[in-house]
Amino acid sequence: MMERFEHGGDTYGLGDVIDFSASLNPLGMPLQIARALKLATSSFSPYPDPQCRDLVKALAAYEGVEADRIVATAGSTDAFARIVTALAPEKALVCSPCYSGYEQALRQARTRVVHHTLVASEDFDLSERVIDYIESGVDMVFLCSPNNPTGRVIPRDLLCKVLDAASRQSAWVVLDECYLDFTNEATAVSLLDRYPRLIVVKSFTKSFAMAGIRVGWCVCGLPGTAKALREAGMPWIVSTPSQVAGIAALGIPEYLDTSREYIQQERDRLQSALADMGMTVVPSHANFILFQSPQPLYEPLLERGILIRRCGNFRGLDGTWFRVAVRTAQENEKLVSALKEVLGR
Amino acid sequence: MMERFEHGGDTYGLGDVIDFSASLNPLGMPLQIARALKLATSSFSPYPDPQCRDLVKALAAYEGVEADRIVATAGSTDAFARIVTALAPEKALVCSPCYSGYEQALRQARTRVVHHTLVASEDFDLSERVIDYIESGVDMVFLCSPNNPTGRVIPRDLLCKVLDAASRQSAWVVLDECYLDFTNEATAVSLLDRYPRLIVVKSFTKSFAMAGIRVGWCVCGLPGTAKALREAGMPWIVSTPSQVAGIAALGIPEYLDTSREYIQQERDRLQSALADMGMTVVPSHANFILFQSPQPLYEPLLERGILIRRCGNFRGLDGTWFRVAVRTAQENEKLVSALKEVLGR
Repeated sequence: MMERFEHGGDTYGLGDVIDFSASLNPLGMPLQIARALKLATSSFSPYPDPQCRDLVKALAAYEGVEADRIVATAGSTDAFARIVTALAPEKALVCSPCYSGYEQALRQARTRVVHHTLVASEDFDLSERVIDYIESGVDMVFLCSPNNPTGRVIPRDLLCKVLDAASRQSAWVVLDECYLDFTNEATAVSLLDRYPRLIVVKSFTKSFAMAGIRVGWCVCGLPGTAKALREAGMPWIVSTPSQVAGIAALGIPEYLDTSREYIQQERDRLQSALADMGMTVVPSHANFILFQSPQPLYEPLLERGILIRRCGNFRGLDGTWFRVAVRTAQENEKLVSALKEVLGR
Repeated sequence: MMERFEHGGDTYGLGDVIDFSASLNPLGMPLQIARALKLATSSFSPYPDPQCRDLVKALAAYEGVEADRIVATAGSTDAFARIVTALAPEKALVCSPCYSGYEQALRQARTRVVHHTLVASEDFDLSERVIDYIESGVDMVFLCSPNNPTGRVIPRDLLCKVLDAASRQSAWVVLDECYLDFTNEATAVSLLDRYPRLIVVKSFTKSFAMAGIRVGWCVCGLPGTAKALREAGMPWIVSTPSQVAGIAALGIPEYLDTSREYIQQERDRLQSALADMGMTVVPSHANFILFQSPQPLYEPLLERGILIRRCGNFRGLDGTWFRVAVRTAQENEKLVSALKEVLGR
């Protein structure tokens, strides 16, 4: 049985499998990051810089905003925990299906959670209907673009309408952009001056395939919000390896361009193959694909050494839905072959 | 000005200083840990094992308890956060002066905090008076042995009396043993069968001087408590470098024996020197020394390249109290010389 908060990427009990369940950059962690970590081991003995000074400075330059609006985090789960701890929302809106970590963080903060369920016939796209939910009196809204697990982006004009509605309610909007680097979309950081209650959450985890290291950041509309999020973090929670790896990643932005191009090409091929096999595919802008299968896939693929994300524990989906990461050409071909075998084609 | 939750060990804004403010093993991080991390960088790309299977197995063998009573954490601050989140105490007792992280975690969980203030004339020793506070109706008690910043241990017979009192109230006892490796005292883990509401918190941070990496653990009386603490952790918060470093540390327990012997010798010399200079010294069982000075020390020592922990933000102390780590013989001599200079001796 799947547990409520089970995630992808836990291959540790499974032996040797190809992991399509975690949506990481298939080109892997850049060598420059491994090298930076190897060179830095002597700096791992003292306490981490609690203010993450060098990392925050590098992030501020990368985002083109003042450092006082940046918060370094131990990955995005730490960001969500800090946000709900610091801002203590009473009633928050999540748009399902989405990453379960929002709800997990909200429940720990004892926030009431309101669900707006997106519909399959619209490819789970966000629509203006969300505004009714915001106007019903929530004080925090979680959005994700491109959304996990649907891969759908929120168009800029819709995002602004949603932000306007939230502004009228004095509601916080937490926008998760952890997969944005894989799309051609612009970050919403440029909207922060207009919408001071917007918080954009980002992470190195997926873009640089460094999920083991735990490092990400938030960009806040107001320095006061950033200060509150900093104070809500556990002391030293952003480790020295995290800070070192984050700084190294910011030094190789070209890696993202190469990765994006590669992934988009592979994604299109994989989507076509899935559709050709009779799957209902949600067209993705990200590095993963959500699809519905006419027959069970999880166990038969696992028997063939392939781990995919069964989506039965995403609110708004059921056991007929699966998510696969876009991996290397060779790995994607293995997935397609295995699927053909399972489907008897 | 010192902030309420300012800690030692933040040398990052200060240039080149000898850090007596953080109480880490002066022999430094063992080379075996750096080597293990360098060899493991290729494992940093996937998500960390969310269940920390190998680390927990190694910890269970080290503690001689079943793995289902162990919780791996991202250092002890993560442990305290999980404990208050999972067990949601209404009213908790802390015995001051003590590590401010207990109160910080409790405040974030909106727990009412009761303070029992220990007295200087008794070397800040815990006494049976604490039982009155427990009987006044708290449901969680934080203890630390040896206590930070006083360096005083809780004798086993007193600890059992306190645990008995807590049992009668069905109160949790959180016992922080993060500095225990520097003493000759036995861990309270052997008491867990008798006191199922006892939680022992431990960390590699100080013993192996690996504060930058963030890894520790709890041993719980009941598997159900361990399960609740595991579920209260943010997903993947124990990073892969943390898990790798923790396993490497458990492979070299002899490092603790060497360190303990070295530190105890240096501690005795440093304590005598401080007393000879007219300081009021609290006799320490740990790798740090709390003392009261007849004149200001923080700024004049910092001007001489030495950072000490001013203790004005510990409840129960004031600006006349300071904590210094026991460091290497050479560094301790530098501290003593600088102190003589400042005091005009």
